[in-house]
Amino acid sequence: MRITVYLTDNRPEPWIKALREALPDAEVDVWAPGAPQADHAVVWAPPQQMLDEQAPGLKTIFNIGAGVDAILKLKLPPTTQLVRIDDGGMAVQMAEFVCHALVRHFRELDYYQEAAKDGEWTYRRPRQRQDFPVGIMGMGVLGQRVAKAVQHFEFPVNGWSRSPREVEGVRGFAGEAQLNDFLAASKVLVCLLPLTPDTRGILRHDTLSKLQFGGLLINVARGAHLVEDDLIALLDSGQLSGATLDVFQTEPLPADHPFWRHPRITVTPHASARTLRDETVAQIAGKIRAMDRGEPVAGVVDTARGY
Amino acid sequence: MRITVYLTDNRPEPWIKALREALPDAEVDVWAPGAPQADHAVVWAPPQQMLDEQAPGLKTIFNIGAGVDAILKLKLPPTTQLVRIDDGGMAVQMAEFVCHALVRHFRELDYYQEAAKDGEWTYRRPRQRQDFPVGIMGMGVLGQRVAKAVQHFEFPVNGWSRSPREVEGVRGFAGEAQLNDFLAASKVLVCLLPLTPDTRGILRHDTLSKLQFGGLLINVARGAHLVEDDLIALLDSGQLSGATLDVFQTEPLPADHPFWRHPRITVTPHASARTLRDETVAQIAGKIRAMDRGEPVAGVVDTARGY
Repeated sequence: MRITVYLTDNRPEPWIKALREALPDAEVDVWAPGAPQADHAVVWAPPQQMLDEQAPGLKTIFNIGAGVDAILKLKLPPTTQLVRIDDGGMAVQMAEFVCHALVRHFRELDYYQEAAKDGEWTYRRPRQRQDFPVGIMGMGVLGQRVAKAVQHFEFPVNGWSRSPREVEGVRGFAGEAQLNDFLAASKVLVCLLPLTPDTRGILRHDTLSKLQFGGLLINVARGAHLVEDDLIALLDSGQLSGATLDVFQTEPLPADHPFWRHPRITVTPHASARTLRDETVAQIAGKIRAMDRGEPVAGVVDTARGY
Repeated sequence: MRITVYLTDNRPEPWIKALREALPDAEVDVWAPGAPQADHAVVWAPPQQMLDEQAPGLKTIFNIGAGVDAILKLKLPPTTQLVRIDDGGMAVQMAEFVCHALVRHFRELDYYQEAAKDGEWTYRRPRQRQDFPVGIMGMGVLGQRVAKAVQHFEFPVNGWSRSPREVEGVRGFAGEAQLNDFLAASKVLVCLLPLTPDTRGILRHDTLSKLQFGGLLINVARGAHLVEDDLIALLDSGQLSGATLDVFQTEPLPADHPFWRHPRITVTPHASARTLRDETVAQIAGKIRAMDRGEPVAGVVDTARGY
């Protein structure tokens, strides 16, 4: 078995070493033009040429990230299945990142941090977590893990997904028809949607303004979900009281972008859940072994649906 | 049945109203010198005169907070039992407060926040949560709830208590004999101990310096647990890399105290877990009804032990 690797943003050597250790029977090499035909590809943002050259015999493309919107812009080999990383250590990172933003907002810790600069010992009246229902858009592996963490801290949780999903303790909403009800039932909105033609720009004035007054937006999905000017208008009017943004229309976020210094926006550099090599390699190796045994694997992307 | 109420720091009226609603048979009034004999007292930082006057027939003193160190400085009526609030909505607050501080530190979110001020898109290498074992001192109601939350985010958890305690998923250490091992096994230290003669000053140079290098201190118990100058020395030497402090030797923390502006110390004004009236009143009412039925109640303080 041969595996070819191409990773924009990551040095490939440690990945190749880890894949060789996890799959001792496999030949694992970095891809370059003219490389021999491989059975599986492990990629992040690969060139079209790689896919075209490898197309004839390639069984699987493993995309080392949860979002496949970037790779779906390429022309994929028609007989190759695209498999995304379901978790790979990302879900717990996403859960802790979202809970951090939620607790910081709910407990008004920024207020205390500002007061501390002046050596000021001052209280805010405690708020009730029942008044901060958290709406999660996208109830896949990551969304369900985030829901569990938010429930652990006893916040009410609403979940919105394309088709109905039963998740314990989560009030479920589905499809376009229930989007408005979902938004109206939520004060904190966490976006974990896949980016598809249907979800592009879904966070815009007419949706965000349906959240409970003074709401908080946490976008940890893709920058293109959000209409950026609409967010600024809603924050400036007080309709929303804060936003934690990890993803942007343009990444890296340009140094002069107004998000960086907006007093009610927290910016992180697409760091909410990083791909962890060991966990990801273990997951890829497990899936390859399962496929060799003829078993189905999780995370196969429906390219028409987009996730 | 008569209940007398004295609450420093809180307006008594809403508490009296809530107690009357929860216990319709009870006469509930604010205490003043010469007030009629009551069966139960609901207090925070009461005057000695109240306890002396009420001593003859007083069955219970309910202390509306988890820590009883302040009231134990008074001379208590010898036949009255002192009952503390076990949770009253405080445990989940403590859990989220500690997890917020932990995640902020572990994920280096302060680094990203500083970089954002300069519009700088920059990464830190992800760290492994296995390298951040969390040691919890004090494994009572609050300590166990915090342990559960920290486990939820998959950090290793150590627990230290006076006598051995089995808590699922927690590596237990007990007593003076195992304190050094507990500290050496921990990188993040969460103090939730009761303040007693044994625990006063327990966070000092020779204990804190046994934590794993670059550790984080989270003190949400009592200011007198910490030798404040020792903490500053350990932060300045780099032995510790941060501290989140909610409690202080002197409260309010004086405006010129060096903690306020130390770059690696986060100060909050004894706000990690606030007493929530509804939850606390419900708990007191439940305990009074249980005592009336002759049942034992949780949270009775061993005044000799100090908690």
